[in-house]
Amino acid sequence: MEKALRALLEGVRDGSVPVDDGVVRLRDLAFEDLGFANVDHHRKLRRGVPEVVLAQGKTPDQCVEIVGRLLARDGDVLVTRADASTAEVLVNAHAGGDWNRLARTVFWRRTDGTPHLPGRVLVVSAGTSDLRVAEEAAVTARAFGNEVETLFDVGVAGIHRLLGRGEMLRNATVLIVVAGMEGALPSVVAGLTDVPVIAVPTSTGYGASFGGLAALLAMLNSCASGVTVVNIDNGFGAGCAATLIHRLALRKESSA
Amino acid sequence: MEKALRALLEGVRDGSVPVDDGVVRLRDLAFEDLGFANVDHHRKLRRGVPEVVLAQGKTPDQCVEIVGRLLARDGDVLVTRADASTAEVLVNAHAGGDWNRLARTVFWRRTDGTPHLPGRVLVVSAGTSDLRVAEEAAVTARAFGNEVETLFDVGVAGIHRLLGRGEMLRNATVLIVVAGMEGALPSVVAGLTDVPVIAVPTSTGYGASFGGLAALLAMLNSCASGVTVVNIDNGFGAGCAATLIHRLALRKESSA
Amino acid sequence: MEKALRALLEGVRDGSVPVDDGVVRLRDLAFEDLGFANVDHHRKLRRGVPEVVLAQGKTPDQCVEIVGRLLARDGDVLVTRADASTAEVLVNAHAGGDWNRLARTVFWRRTDGTPHLPGRVLVVSAGTSDLRVAEEAAVTARAFGNEVETLFDVGVAGIHRLLGRGEMLRNATVLIVVAGMEGALPSVVAGLTDVPVIAVPTSTGYGASFGGLAALLAMLNSCASGVTVVNIDNGFGAGCAATLIHRLALRKESSA
Amino acid sequence: MEKALRALLEGVRDGSVPVDDGVVRLRDLAFEDLGFANVDHHRKLRRGVPEVVLAQGKTPDQCVEIVGRLLARDGDVLVTRADASTAEVLVNAHAGGDWNRLARTVFWRRTDGTPHLPGRVLVVSAGTSDLRVAEEAAVTARAFGNEVETLFDVGVAGIHRLLGRGEMLRNATVLIVVAGMEGALPSVVAGLTDVPVIAVPTSTGYGASFGGLAALLAMLNSCASGVTVVNIDNGFGAGCAATLIHRLALRKESSA
Amino acid sequence: MEKALRALLEGVRDGSVPVDDGVVRLRDLAFEDLGFANVDHHRKLRRGVPEVVLAQGKTPDQCVEIVGRLLARDGDVLVTRADASTAEVLVNAHAGGDWNRLARTVFWRRTDGTPHLPGRVLVVSAGTSDLRVAEEAAVTARAFGNEVETLFDVGVAGIHRLLGRGEMLRNATVLIVVAGMEGALPSVVAGLTDVPVIAVPTSTGYGASFGGLAALLAMLNSCASGVTVVNIDNGFGAGCAATLIHRLALRKESSA
Amino acid sequence: MEKALRALLEGVRDGSVPVDDGVVRLRDLAFEDLGFANVDHHRKLRRGVPEVVLAQGKTPDQCVEIVGRLLARDGDVLVTRADASTAEVLVNAHAGGDWNRLARTVFWRRTDGTPHLPGRVLVVSAGTSDLRVAEEAAVTARAFGNEVETLFDVGVAGIHRLLGRGEMLRNATVLIVVAGMEGALPSVVAGLTDVPVIAVPTSTGYGASFGGLAALLAMLNSCASGVTVVNIDNGFGAGCAATLIHRLALRKESSA
Amino acid sequence: MEKALRALLEGVRDGSVPVDDGVVRLRDLAFEDLGFANVDHHRKLRRGVPEVVLAQGKTPDQCVEIVGRLLARDGDVLVTRADASTAEVLVNAHAGGDWNRLARTVFWRRTDGTPHLPGRVLVVSAGTSDLRVAEEAAVTARAFGNEVETLFDVGVAGIHRLLGRGEMLRNATVLIVVAGMEGALPSVVAGLTDVPVIAVPTSTGYGASFGGLAALLAMLNSCASGVTVVNIDNGFGAGCAATLIHRLALRKESSA
Amino acid sequence: MEKALRALLEGVRDGSVPVDDGVVRLRDLAFEDLGFANVDHHRKLRRGVPEVVLAQGKTPDQCVEIVGRLLARDGDVLVTRADASTAEVLVNAHAGGDWNRLARTVFWRRTDGTPHLPGRVLVVSAGTSDLRVAEEAAVTARAFGNEVETLFDVGVAGIHRLLGRGEMLRNATVLIVVAGMEGALPSVVAGLTDVPVIAVPTSTGYGASFGGLAALLAMLNSCASGVTVVNIDNGFGAGCAATLIHRLALRKESSA
Repeated sequence: MEKALRALLEGVRDGSVPVDDGVVRLRDLAFEDLGFANVDHHRKLRRGVPEVVLAQGKTPDQCVEIVGRLLARDGDVLVTRADASTAEVLVNAHAGGDWNRLARTVFWRRTDGTPHLPGRVLVVSAGTSDLRVAEEAAVTARAFGNEVETLFDVGVAGIHRLLGRGEMLRNATVLIVVAGMEGALPSVVAGLTDVPVIAVPTSTGYGASFGGLAALLAMLNSCASGVTVVNIDNGFGAGCAATLIHRLALRKESSA
Repeated sequence: MEKALRALLEGVRDGSVPVDDGVVRLRDLAFEDLGFANVDHHRKLRRGVPEVVLAQGKTPDQCVEIVGRLLARDGDVLVTRADASTAEVLVNAHAGGDWNRLARTVFWRRTDGTPHLPGRVLVVSAGTSDLRVAEEAAVTARAFGNEVETLFDVGVAGIHRLLGRGEMLRNATVLIVVAGMEGALPSVVAGLTDVPVIAVPTSTGYGASFGGLAALLAMLNSCASGVTVVNIDNGFGAGCAATLIHRLALRKESSA
Repeated sequence: MEKALRALLEGVRDGSVPVDDGVVRLRDLAFEDLGFANVDHHRKLRRGVPEVVLAQGKTPDQCVEIVGRLLARDGDVLVTRADASTAEVLVNAHAGGDWNRLARTVFWRRTDGTPHLPGRVLVVSAGTSDLRVAEEAAVTARAFGNEVETLFDVGVAGIHRLLGRGEMLRNATVLIVVAGMEGALPSVVAGLTDVPVIAVPTSTGYGASFGGLAALLAMLNSCASGVTVVNIDNGFGAGCAATLIHRLALRKESSA
Repeated sequence: MEKALRALLEGVRDGSVPVDDGVVRLRDLAFEDLGFANVDHHRKLRRGVPEVVLAQGKTPDQCVEIVGRLLARDGDVLVTRADASTAEVLVNAHAGGDWNRLARTVFWRRTDGTPHLPGRVLVVSAGTSDLRVAEEAAVTARAFGNEVETLFDVGVAGIHRLLGRGEMLRNATVLIVVAGMEGALPSVVAGLTDVPVIAVPTSTGYGASFGGLAALLAMLNSCASGVTVVNIDNGFGAGCAATLIHRLALRKESSA
Repeated sequence: MEKALRALLEGVRDGSVPVDDGVVRLRDLAFEDLGFANVDHHRKLRRGVPEVVLAQGKTPDQCVEIVGRLLARDGDVLVTRADASTAEVLVNAHAGGDWNRLARTVFWRRTDGTPHLPGRVLVVSAGTSDLRVAEEAAVTARAFGNEVETLFDVGVAGIHRLLGRGEMLRNATVLIVVAGMEGALPSVVAGLTDVPVIAVPTSTGYGASFGGLAALLAMLNSCASGVTVVNIDNGFGAGCAATLIHRLALRKESSA
Repeated sequence: MEKALRALLEGVRDGSVPVDDGVVRLRDLAFEDLGFANVDHHRKLRRGVPEVVLAQGKTPDQCVEIVGRLLARDGDVLVTRADASTAEVLVNAHAGGDWNRLARTVFWRRTDGTPHLPGRVLVVSAGTSDLRVAEEAAVTARAFGNEVETLFDVGVAGIHRLLGRGEMLRNATVLIVVAGMEGALPSVVAGLTDVPVIAVPTSTGYGASFGGLAALLAMLNSCASGVTVVNIDNGFGAGCAATLIHRLALRKESSA
Repeated sequence: MEKALRALLEGVRDGSVPVDDGVVRLRDLAFEDLGFANVDHHRKLRRGVPEVVLAQGKTPDQCVEIVGRLLARDGDVLVTRADASTAEVLVNAHAGGDWNRLARTVFWRRTDGTPHLPGRVLVVSAGTSDLRVAEEAAVTARAFGNEVETLFDVGVAGIHRLLGRGEMLRNATVLIVVAGMEGALPSVVAGLTDVPVIAVPTSTGYGASFGGLAALLAMLNSCASGVTVVNIDNGFGAGCAATLIHRLALRKESSA
Repeated sequence: MEKALRALLEGVRDGSVPVDDGVVRLRDLAFEDLGFANVDHHRKLRRGVPEVVLAQGKTPDQCVEIVGRLLARDGDVLVTRADASTAEVLVNAHAGGDWNRLARTVFWRRTDGTPHLPGRVLVVSAGTSDLRVAEEAAVTARAFGNEVETLFDVGVAGIHRLLGRGEMLRNATVLIVVAGMEGALPSVVAGLTDVPVIAVPTSTGYGASFGGLAALLAMLNSCASGVTVVNIDNGFGAGCAATLIHRLALRKESSA
C-alpha cells in the first residue's frame, strides 16, 4: 500500500498523473490507508503471533482448507473450539498438529517456539470441569509466545490449597483465573497478589448458575479492584489479553 | 382446643350432646384442630420468642397500635424494617424500646433476656454497606434467645483478616455470612468450618450487581456443600433459621 | 504438619537451624498450617463421612479409577449425578456398589452403616418428577450417617395428604422439602413445624418455570421465616446441610 | 348505524342512490359496522357496568374533567389507581364519590347498586401489604355488580386460618386470590375448592421477589389445574374477569 | 369418613371408647376430615371428569400400568404430553384409546361422552405451530364434558379472517385463545366479545420470543380487561379453567 | 367480494332482495369487506411477490403438499427455514427449486425474475457464522424483486475493511446489517451512510451472548439515529422490510 | 479538506513537497479524508435537517449555551427529552422556541418549514400514556421535513376504531406505531397496510410490562413481516428512521 | 509481624519459650503471617498509592472522620462516589482537597504527584453522559501515578473523529474505553491498536439499555480479542486495572 501511495505521488511529481486525477484516486486510497497504518504497525509485533481459526460453526472440510492455506505462509496456526471429529480430520490432513483434547485446540508450531514475551502467565482454576477453559487459556497464551504455568483445582472452599502456593503466585506477572459456579476465586486470588488478574467465568454448574451467568456477575462485582473479566468460557480471550499486557514490555524495548 | 374437644366428647358420653350434633360440631372443629396441634407444640418452645412486627408497609400509627397490643401481653416485641421516623415515634410511644438504627429494629425486652439457647451464632460480614443486614441478623438472633458474636469487615479480597480469627470461627455453632457484590464470602467461610452456614446476599453494589442478584446467584452456586441461602437483605430470616437450628438441642433436652 | 513445626522449633532450640532460616521456613509453613488446622479439626467429625465423587463431567473410566483409589482407603464412597451408563460401568468394576437409578447415585458402604447422627431427616416432595432430587437428598443424608424418612407426593394442591402425616412431621428434626413448578410446599410445611426447613427447588416443569427459576424464587420469598434454600436440583447440598445441623449435637457431646 | 345501513339500502331500492355509489359508501360503512355489532351486543349486558377511568398517568385536572363528562351520562363511574392528592381533588369536585384509600379508587354510584349478577366473589389475600390490591379487586367486582366477600390475612405459612373458613370457600362461585412474595396461596386455595380461581400476584416483597416476578411465576406454574393469572398488582383485571364469568349466567337467562 | 366419625362418637356414647382415647383418635381423624369434606364435595360434580395422567417424566411402562389401574375403575382416562412412542405403547396395551398425535393425548372414553356441561368453548389459535397446544386445550375441554369448537389460523396480521367469524365468536361462552410469537391475539379477540377469555402463550417462535416469554408477557399486559393467562404451552390448564367456569352453571342447577 | 356487494345492491334495487334481508346479509359481508379492501390493494403491488412457506414446524410431506398447491397458481414460491432433509425432499418433489443451503431456503422462480423494484439492497455482515442469516435476507430481498448486493466479513474490529468499500455503501438505498456477538456493526455502518439501516441481530456467539440477546440490545441502543431492528436471526423479516421501503417508489409511480 | 489534498498534490507536482514528506502527510490526512467524504455527502441532503440536542443528562445552563451556539448558525434546532424546568429556561433564553410539553421537545424553526420530503408519516398510538412518545415521533418527523398525521387512542382491544380510519391508513407512506403494555398494535396495523411500519414500544404499563420489555419483545416477534423496531420510548429514533425512508425519493430525484 | 516471629524463634533458641508453647503460638501466628507476607509485598510497590474511601453508603460525617485519620498518615487520599453535599463538607473540613464534580471525586495529594509509572493511559469515551465515568477512571489512574490523556466524544456513529486521532492511540500503552448505550466503542478501538483495552460499560441510556446491561453484554461479546471488561460505571476499577498493568514494568525494574 505504501508502494502504491509513493507511486502515485511520483506520478504527480513527474506529471504523468494530473492533480485532479490524484485527488480522486487518493480519496479511494484513503480508506485503504487505514489498513496500511495498522497492518504495518502490527507487523513489528507479529513475531510469534499465530493465525487463529475458530472451528466452531465451520465444517471439518472448511477447517482443513483454511488451515492449509495458512500453513502455506509458514507461520504458526492455532485452531480453537475444535470438537473431536473436526480435530481428528485436521491432524490427519496436516502433519505436525498438536491436539489438546481438553482445550479443544490444535496447534501447528512452525516457528522456534521459545517464549519470546517477558513475564509469566499463571492460569489458576477451581474445579475439574473448568479445566477445558483453563487449558484453552494456557494453550493460547503459549501459542502467542508467553511462558505459562498452571495451578489447577484450587477452589475457594479449600482456600489453603491456594495459600500453599505462594511461590507460584509471586512469580506470575499476569494471572488468568478460571472459575464456574459462584466465581469467587478471582476475588480471593486478587487479594493475594498485585499483578493484573483476568477473570474467566465458565458455564460449569447447573440450576441457578444459568450457564455461567452467576460466575460472570460475581466476577464483575469483585470487591478486589483491578480484576477485569472476559466472556463466559472465553479462555482464548483471556490468553490474548495476557499477551497484550506482556507485549507492552517488548514494545518499550523495541522503541528504546 | 383440647379442652373443647374433651368437653364435647364428655357431652356425647353423658348424652347431653346427640351423636348427630357431635358430627357437625367436630367437622368444624377439625379445621381448628390443626391449629391446636401447632400452637400447643409451639408453646413449649416459645420461651424467649418475641412477637415480630414488620414495619415496612405500615404507617407509624399502625405500628404504635400493634406494638401496644403486643406489649400488653407481657412478652418481648421486635419491630423490623423500621425507618428512622417510624422508629422515633415508636420509642416515644412505648418506653423501654431499644432502637438499633443500623439494623432498623426496635426491641422491647420484657423477659429475662439471658440467651436460653445452646450454641453461639457468629455473624460475619464483608463490607461496611452490608452492616445493616448483618446487624438485623444479629439483633434477631439475640431477640430469639441466641448468644451472638459478630465479625465484620472481612471481605474475601483480604482473606487474611478472616483467617486471623480462627478462635471465633471455632467457637461458633451456626454461621450467618452476609455479603453483597460478588457474594463470595460464604464459600470461603464454609471451607474453614464444619458448622451450618446460612448465607445472606445483600443488595449492596451497583451496575451488574442487579440489586443483589449477583450475590444471590453466587451463594446458591457455592462450591462449599452445605451452604444454604435466604432472600436478598433478609437478615431477619437468617436469624430465624439459626434459631430453629439451636432449638433442636433444646427440644431434645426437653423431650429427654 | 504439627510434627514438621515441632521439628523446626527443636532445630532452632538446638541451634541446628539459625533463626533467620527459621523465619523463612515458617513463612512457607504458615500457609500449610491452615490446612493442618482444618484437616485435623475435620477428622474428629469424619466418622461416617463418605468420600464424594461428582460423576457429571467425568468419563466412566475416570470415575472407575477415582472410585477405585478411594475404596482402597477403606472408607465409604458416594458417587452422585451418575447417568445409567456410568453407573453400570461402576457397579461392574467395583463390587458392593448400591445403585439408586432414580437418585443417579452409587454408594459403597464399607463402614458399619448404622446412622450415627442424632435426629431424623424427613425428605418431603411434591410430584413424581421431583423424586430424583428427593432421592438424591435422602441417599446423601443416609450416606452421611443420618436417619432418614421420606414422604413423597404431597403437593400443595392436595394439602390434606400432607396434613394427614402429622406424626412424621412431628418426629423429624430437619426437613428437606423438594418441589418444582410453583415451589410452594416449603412454605406450607414450615408453617406446620418448628424445625429447620431446607428447601430444594427442582427444574421440574415447563414454560414459565424457566428451568426451576420459578420454584427457586418462590422459596427465597417464602413467607415462613427460617426456610433456607439451596441451588436448583441440589439434593446433595440439602443432604449435606442437614448433616451439618445434626452434627452440632455430636460435636457438643464430643466436647462435653 | 343500523339506521344508516337501512337508509342506504332504501336509497338504493328507491333509485336515489346509484349502485356504484352504494358500493363506495358501504365500503366505508363496513369498518363502522363492526363497532355497531359489538356495541349493540354490549348494551344488553351493560346494566350496572360503570365507566372506568385509570387515573395513573393523568393529571388531577384531566381526571376531574373526564369524570365530569362521564357522570353527565348518569351512569356509574369508577376511578382506579388514584393517588391521595388526585382522589382528594376528585371527591371535592364531584359530590357522592366513595373514596377507598387502600384500593386507591373513587366510585360514584348513580344506579341502584344492588348486586345484579348471580354468584359470589370471594377475595382472599395473604398479607397486609397485599390488601391494596385485594381491595382494588373487591371494589371493582362490586362496582360491576357482583356480590363480594373478603377473607384477608390467610397466608400459606398459617394454613389453618384458611382451613377454618370452609363455609366461605364453599359459598363462593369465583375466587380471586391475591398474594405477593412466594405466591403460593392460589395453589393451596384451588386445591380446596372447585370453582374458578383467578390469581393476582402482587409486588409485595423485596430482594428476589423482583417486583412481583417471583409470585407471578409461581402462580403461572401452579400445580392446581385451572388457576388463571392476571398481571402483577392487577386487582382491577381480576375483578373484571370475575364479572365476565358471572355474566355468563345472566346471558343464559336473558337468552332463555 | 363420616361413618368413622359417627362410629367413634357412638363408641364414646356407649362407653366402649374412653374420652381420652377419643381425643387421641379424633386428633388424627381431624386431618383426614379435610380430605373428606373435599372429596365428598368433588364427588357430586365428578360426573364426566376423567382421571388425568401426565406422561411426561414417566416411562411408557409406568404409564401403561397407571392407566390400567385407572381404567379398572370404569371412568374416563386422559393421558397428556405423551410422545409418539409412549402413545403407541399405550393404545396397544389398552383398547379403545383415542390418540391425538398433534395434541399428544390419548383418551379412553368409558362414559356416555355427550357434553354434559352448558355453554360452548371456542378454541382460537393463530399459527400452524400453535395447533399442538390448541388441540391439547380442545381435547381436554371435551374430555371434561364441554362442547368445543375450534377456529384455527386467525393471526392478528390477518385480522379480517377473525372478523369474518362473528357467528362463532357470538356462540361461545368461554374463549381459549392460543398464540405464540407476539401473543397479540387474545387482546384482539377479547375486544370483540364479552365472555371470559383464557389466554395460552406458546413457545412457538425463535430469537427474542425466548421460549414463549414474549407471548406470555404480552398476554399478561393485555389492554383488554378480563383476560386471564395460563402457563406457556399449557393447553391442558386452559381446558380445565374453562371447565371450572362452565361447571358453575351445573352447580347452581344442582343446588336449586 | 366487490362483485357480491354489487350483486346484493342490484338485488335491492330490483326488489328481489328486501331491505331487511339486505341489512342482515350486509352485516355478515361487512367483516369480509375488510379483507376485500386489503387484498385488492395488495394485488396492485403483488407483481413479483412470492408466496412464502415457513418450513420450520412442518413435516417434509406437509411442505411438499403446500408448495405443490402454491406452484399450481403459477406464482413464485419461497420456502424458508428448510433444514437439509426437508429441502432435499422439496427439490426432488417439485422441479426448478433453487436450494440455498446456507440460507436454508428453496425458491421456485416462475415469473420473469428481473428485479422490478427501484434501488439496491446492500446486505452487510460481520462474521462467517452470520452468513446463514445474511443469505436469508439476501435471498428474500431478491425473491421479492429487489436488486441485492452483499458485503460479507466486515466486522467492527477490522473497520478498515468496511471503510474500503465506500462505492458499495454509496450505491445502496437500503442497508441490511447482520451481526452477532456485540452487534456493533449497524451503528458503525449507519454513521457512514444516510439511507435506512435495518439491523439483524444473530444468535452467533456463546456465553454472555445469551442466544443473540447481547446483539439485539446493542442494536436497539444504537447511538446512530434511524437504525431499526428486527428479531434475532430474522433475515427474512429484514428482506421484507427492505422490500416495503423500495415499494414506496413503485407506489408513487403507479399512483402518478 | 479537498483543498488541503489538492494543495499537497500541487506541492508534490511543483517539487516543493518531496515524495517522502508527501507519504507521511497523506497518512495523517487519510483519517480526516473519511470525514470529508461523509460530511460532503451529508450536506447535499441536509436541507431542512435540524441540529438535535438531547437535554437529558445536561444542565439547563449547558442546554442554553449549546442551543445558542447552534442557533447562531441560522439552522433549525430541536431539543428532545427536555423536562419542564429545562424547557422553560430554554424558551426564555432563546426567542421563537416552540415547546411541546407532552413530547418534551423545544423546536426553533429558522428555515421555511414547509415539508420538503415526499410522502406522509402517520403516527398511530394506542393509549393516552403513549402520547408523549407518539408526540416525540411526530415532532421529530415534522422537524426533519416530513408531512405528519396522527391517529391516537386506537388500541387493539377496540380494533373497530382503527378499522374506521381506512383513508388515513391508505394515505400514509410510512407508519410509526407506538404502543406500550402488550405492544400488539404494530402487528395489527401492519396487517392492514403495505407500507413500512416502524414500531415503538413504550414503558407504559406496570407489573409484568417490566418497563416496556413486554411491548418490545412483542414487537420483535411480530407475525407481520416487515415490521422493524426501535428502542423503548424512542420516538425520536422512529422519526429519524421515517425521514431516512422518505429521503430516498429525494435522493433519487436529486441524482436524476 | 516479622519481628514477632523472630522474637519467638529467639525465645525458643534461648530456651525462654518451650517448644510446646512455640507450636501453640505459631499456630495462631500462622494466620497473621499471610497478612504479613502480603502487606510487606505491597509496601515495596506502594509509592504513590493513595488510600481510597468509597463515599457511597457513608454519611458526610463518617467520611470526614475517615479522611482525617488517613491524612494524618501523610499519604494521598482519594474519595470516590462523593455526591455534591458530601464533597462540599469534605473540602471544607480538610484543606487541599481537589474536588472533581463530574467524577464525583475528592483527592488530597500529599506526595510529589509526578506520574511515577511508565506508559500512558488513554481514556476514550463516547458520549457526554459517559463523561462522569470516564473522568472517574482518569482521576483514579492519575491518583495512582499514571500519566493520563483523555479523548472524549468519539462515538462509533462518527467513527472518523476517532480515526483522526491516530497519534493519541499510538502513544497510549493502556486504553480505557468508556461507553454506554450499545457499547460498541471498545471493539472498534481495539481493532485499531494492539495495547490492552479495558472496557467500561456505563448506565447511560434508557429503555432497552436496562441500566447498562446492553453495553455490558456487548463488551463481553467483543469480537476484538483481548478486550477485558469491568462492572457497569466502574471507572475506578478500570483505573486500578490500568495501574496494575503499568506497575509490571516497575516491578521488573525494581527486581532487576
